[in-house]
Amino acid sequence: MTITLPEDSVGIVEPQQLHFDEPLSLRSGKVLPAYDIVFETYGELNTKKSNAILICHALSGDHHAAGYHNGDTKKPGWWDSCIGAGKAIDTNLFFVVCMNNLGGCGGSTGPASKDPETGKYFGPDFPVVTVRDWVKSQVMLMDRLEIPKWAAVVGGSLGGMQALRWAISYPERIAHAICIAAAPKLSAQNIAFNEVARQSITSDPDFHQGYYLEHGTYPKQGLTLARMVGHITYLSDSAMRAKFGKTVSDFETEKTNFGRDLRSGKLSFGFDVDFQVESYLHYQGERFSENFDANTYLLMTKALDYFDPSVDFEGDLSKAFLNSDCKFMLVSFTTDWRFPPERSRELVNDLLKAGREVTYLEVEADQGHDAFLLPIPRYISAFRSYLCRVHKEICQDAP
Amino acid sequence: MTITLPEDSVGIVEPQQLHFDEPLSLRSGKVLPAYDIVFETYGELNTKKSNAILICHALSGDHHAAGYHNGDTKKPGWWDSCIGAGKAIDTNLFFVVCMNNLGGCGGSTGPASKDPETGKYFGPDFPVVTVRDWVKSQVMLMDRLEIPKWAAVVGGSLGGMQALRWAISYPERIAHAICIAAAPKLSAQNIAFNEVARQSITSDPDFHQGYYLEHGTYPKQGLTLARMVGHITYLSDSAMRAKFGKTVSDFETEKTNFGRDLRSGKLSFGFDVDFQVESYLHYQGERFSENFDANTYLLMTKALDYFDPSVDFEGDLSKAFLNSDCKFMLVSFTTDWRFPPERSRELVNDLLKAGREVTYLEVEADQGHDAFLLPIPRYISAFRSYLCRVHKEICQDAP
Repeated sequence: MTITLPEDSVGIVEPQQLHFDEPLSLRSGKVLPAYDIVFETYGELNTKKSNAILICHALSGDHHAAGYHNGDTKKPGWWDSCIGAGKAIDTNLFFVVCMNNLGGCGGSTGPASKDPETGKYFGPDFPVVTVRDWVKSQVMLMDRLEIPKWAAVVGGSLGGMQALRWAISYPERIAHAICIAAAPKLSAQNIAFNEVARQSITSDPDFHQGYYLEHGTYPKQGLTLARMVGHITYLSDSAMRAKFGKTVSDFETEKTNFGRDLRSGKLSFGFDVDFQVESYLHYQGERFSENFDANTYLLMTKALDYFDPSVDFEGDLSKAFLNSDCKFMLVSFTTDWRFPPERSRELVNDLLKAGREVTYLEVEADQGHDAFLLPIPRYISAFRSYLCRVHKEICQDAP
Repeated sequence: MTITLPEDSVGIVEPQQLHFDEPLSLRSGKVLPAYDIVFETYGELNTKKSNAILICHALSGDHHAAGYHNGDTKKPGWWDSCIGAGKAIDTNLFFVVCMNNLGGCGGSTGPASKDPETGKYFGPDFPVVTVRDWVKSQVMLMDRLEIPKWAAVVGGSLGGMQALRWAISYPERIAHAICIAAAPKLSAQNIAFNEVARQSITSDPDFHQGYYLEHGTYPKQGLTLARMVGHITYLSDSAMRAKFGKTVSDFETEKTNFGRDLRSGKLSFGFDVDFQVESYLHYQGERFSENFDANTYLLMTKALDYFDPSVDFEGDLSKAFLNSDCKFMLVSFTTDWRFPPERSRELVNDLLKAGREVTYLEVEADQGHDAFLLPIPRYISAFRSYLCRVHKEICQDAP
């Protein structure tokens, strides 16, 4: 059987794995003595090694950002809309690296890995890792790949926070930071939603204080619920109205029924699922719970909560960027209520105050936080233009 | 010991109870053969019986809207800010009635009551009740109290939906409908949050398919989680920032730390509660779970989801109000993202299209959906002015 993949796809990709024996000192004070990192690369590294881009993933992402895995040619990587030949992150121009973060469940060392010292699953004993720790491990990978400097570090949401941390902690090793649909720190409301998600997981009787793998079970209900809450915050109210509502015609206006489509045409007068939106959330939550590790979910939400580079600078974020040497591109989406444009504008102000060069794009989009994963023309086109300029800079620098 | 209550308080109040033997046909097709209604009244009914106001409660409310119960003189009724001598709903002018809705857990017949036919708790066998059913039972109470017509039916949130239903179903028995912080129907996002709350409750192993009272237990964890989710949606992001964040001074601006105050001054690097906002939500959720029935919570959220008076009119809400004869006052609050002003404006349009008289007040307030319970000067003052006009109408009508 011949499989035809889209022409602009990076094609069939194979994850790579590297082992690191150098101990990694973590923000918490703990030390990870050794670890594995799983990653993928797309495109070719040039002879000057100047065209490498690091992609940082968000809460539920992993190293598989683009292309297809052998045997699974239906579902491409999570950011396939942006990575490929002629796409925003053009693999004809750039060498793209994406790793699964430590603490993840995609293959890099995390709670679902076995601790070589004990032979048991790390589970809840895997140390809490922060955005700063991830960036540190990304430096380790970069050194192993002999990349002197990233042309750009790029990420959406929690990935965008990693791009910011790169700009602050390793100014000499990054030329551009591209931070999409993110914020310089979570607000109380963001933290509150994360805590609800964590509470859903830890109160599931199958959680067993995090030792569920030892017990041969997993907190399916709790993880499903956590994802349902998360999913609501990734979508906008208007996107949900459009997705789950028929359009009602009216003499003067076209309006939807506010996303109230029923699942079976009539109300149950019971506590079953009545509306399509409920059905969808259950489906998404359950599918997610079958493919994701609950302890990783806890770790990722804490990394989000903890991220706040301003704390080392008396709360003044602009000071955090005084030593940054890269240029910045920020993107926000109008209906993203998880990290609204207001939060990106705040970041723009602080970057300008720190004397940095910033390109800021606010995209009209109906899809909420999820918009950063979608092929929205204005977004993709501006993103691509920016990276073409980055590539031109690289070529100009060449002898 | 002498207890001094505030001068404008309705003072010590005592709930009353009435038994109804007339069967109540419900929207679901089921019949409630008999039931009790618990209610409170404040102020005096005039001789013409024309000055009665019905207060309808929201999801977690009950009949105790104002004043104090004997032995509990610390915490007044849930809407004490608005009901009393000289307050918005002035008990010097009006006779105020507030009942616990059927299916509630404040004393009216509900899932936590015993079914006289079986001698067992109704539990999950209590029929699903809708806003329409509640209004029907409010008519029964009204008749028993020999009130011919309400001067006004008033409610916030789910209570506002009851006011709208009165205007549609019993046009001849209501002079004014006052609908605060509500919407003519939930959107998909609202329903999604309700489903997460229900799922939290029903997946608690102590839920026992709703027969927890029979099992001598209750789904504390699940109800706590449900309330935590709800509570986030009642507060605005900005209110949370202000409530849980110290103000950070800066040369140009005063800004908060986005509500990121820590509970113990430093991060735990574990999965404990780190931030004040988490601590607060846990406290609120737990306190609530000790005083509320989980089956009632399920019922109330379904009543919210199901409410949509436009369904009987091919989705055209304006047609639902063609036969309404009352005047309307609508109030919304700028940071209420559960039922944003947009939803009230939509209602204003449909009421105007139906030829109704509408007063609409959009209040700048930082407190989100919860604002309707708070003594916000502009809100209280306009609310009071409107009701003074209503009272003047009554006096003019008097011979």
